[in-house]
Amino acid sequence: MDIKTYLIDQKKIIEEALNLYMLRTNGDFAEHIETMRYSLFASGKRIRPILCLAAARMIGGENFKDETVLPIACALECIHTYSLVHDDLPAMDNDALRRGKLTNHTVYGEAAAILAGDGLQCFAFDLLSNPDYSAIEPRARLEIISTISRAAGPQGMVGGQSLDVAHEGKEIAFNLLQIIHRSKTGALITASLLAGGITAGATVKQRNRLIEYGKGIGLAFQIVDDILNVESTTEQLGKAAGCDAKRGKATYPAFFGLEKSRGMAADAVKNAVLVLDRFGTGTEPLRELALYIINRNN
Amino acid sequence: MDIKTYLIDQKKIIEEALNLYMLRTNGDFAEHIETMRYSLFASGKRIRPILCLAAARMIGGENFKDETVLPIACALECIHTYSLVHDDLPAMDNDALRRGKLTNHTVYGEAAAILAGDGLQCFAFDLLSNPDYSAIEPRARLEIISTISRAAGPQGMVGGQSLDVAHEGKEIAFNLLQIIHRSKTGALITASLLAGGITAGATVKQRNRLIEYGKGIGLAFQIVDDILNVESTTEQLGKAAGCDAKRGKATYPAFFGLEKSRGMAADAVKNAVLVLDRFGTGTEPLRELALYIINRNN
Repeated sequence: MDIKTYLIDQKKIIEEALNLYMLRTNGDFAEHIETMRYSLFASGKRIRPILCLAAARMIGGENFKDETVLPIACALECIHTYSLVHDDLPAMDNDALRRGKLTNHTVYGEAAAILAGDGLQCFAFDLLSNPDYSAIEPRARLEIISTISRAAGPQGMVGGQSLDVAHEGKEIAFNLLQIIHRSKTGALITASLLAGGITAGATVKQRNRLIEYGKGIGLAFQIVDDILNVESTTEQLGKAAGCDAKRGKATYPAFFGLEKSRGMAADAVKNAVLVLDRFGTGTEPLRELALYIINRNN
Repeated sequence: MDIKTYLIDQKKIIEEALNLYMLRTNGDFAEHIETMRYSLFASGKRIRPILCLAAARMIGGENFKDETVLPIACALECIHTYSLVHDDLPAMDNDALRRGKLTNHTVYGEAAAILAGDGLQCFAFDLLSNPDYSAIEPRARLEIISTISRAAGPQGMVGGQSLDVAHEGKEIAFNLLQIIHRSKTGALITASLLAGGITAGATVKQRNRLIEYGKGIGLAFQIVDDILNVESTTEQLGKAAGCDAKRGKATYPAFFGLEKSRGMAADAVKNAVLVLDRFGTGTEPLRELALYIINRNN
């Protein structure tokens, strides 16, 4: 398979589904919904929903239908997007650019951006729970909601972001950097894979393997993000480059230098790929996605 | 029954449950969890969880066990609290006082307060979905999550807050004021009653009556809030009084004057109480709660 074509195709599937499920800008709340749609359709890479979809297809096999998991995949993208909208706020990272576009608060103001994020998070749980959207069996669906809310919550993504903000510009131990990465980025990546797996009826053994794979690519993803922040231009990244160093942020390159960091990302991906072998057939997309994560340039 | 004693007793039940379910301030995310607990335990009136509990008991009858619905009731309070934390932010209402205490961002800073709200919203869905917390049958639990996420989302509470912020200081039609009240306050109050009812196995007919009752008390609640903002002192309210007028906010008293507004609130409560009669027995708590809503002074 060609990963570039694959990514373009999957992104299209995800964006069509997002457009199908996302609220329309009509009626009483049109302006608020417009602020949510602005960031949701700001051409993200759609990594989390693509991982969710890929895991569901791998576990579900030939008869698996994408429609079953697409509302779940879209909910993950809503959660990821809300976190970016809030991270960019003046009180947090104060970023004016994201994915090459003006950030939400830059366009709509701070109050509207805070509420856009709040609305996106809440809408994700509407998508996850609404029986109109998917035919997943209720018990499995509850497990998915529980998995995602834990991963995105105070001991996952939000908790990680809090630690990150609290320690900006301070020297931190490597152990704390690992905790921040695992919670802020790793948890939702792993939850995306798990949610896809649960949708397709993954066994406990299969779920554990998805977690292992997710840990590997989640770590690689964050190390590569750190490296790109040092090496790339703002134009390549679509957001401010070099800002980690300016803010005195603890990163893998700051701890280990660029070369060793690259090696650590490669090792993490290698481990993730080894876990995949135990699934048998249909592993190619997740294998290629793992390799893409260390080879990407934005 | 004596409504004062009843409210004290119910508040105690809710706060014990909140303390049981809420994350502890230990481990890696202790500081973040502390910011959430600060606002969650800032002695709110606990109206939404009390309504949820009362509806569940009324529908469930003698054999109903509080434990079944308490995680749901607590989740509603988490959602309500997150909305207050975000409403108080400098970019929104910029309030320094809430419930007689310093607001979250005044104590912990803006970034931490945004994340405290985000964490509380997400944790609510953890409480709602986690199988460890309650024995509600999966299908009913999904309906509860769907009901609450719709009520709190872009076409409910968050949408209403967006409209409110967008029209601050502008003249608006009475129709828009009604939409703001219904979505910002009414939707979550009705969802609290419905969630309690669904937990206890309410029929479609019973659910519709709960919605009717909720609409009545939701409207009364908001009119009384508007009246109190005019009439009370900051000390009585525990938050800045008189600020609606200063901000040029559209309110019932601004449209109709105090006396007519009081009459409208009384009528709304009267309608709510009439609906209750159709439930038969066990309606006293919800009847007294409706009357309390127009007689409260903070």
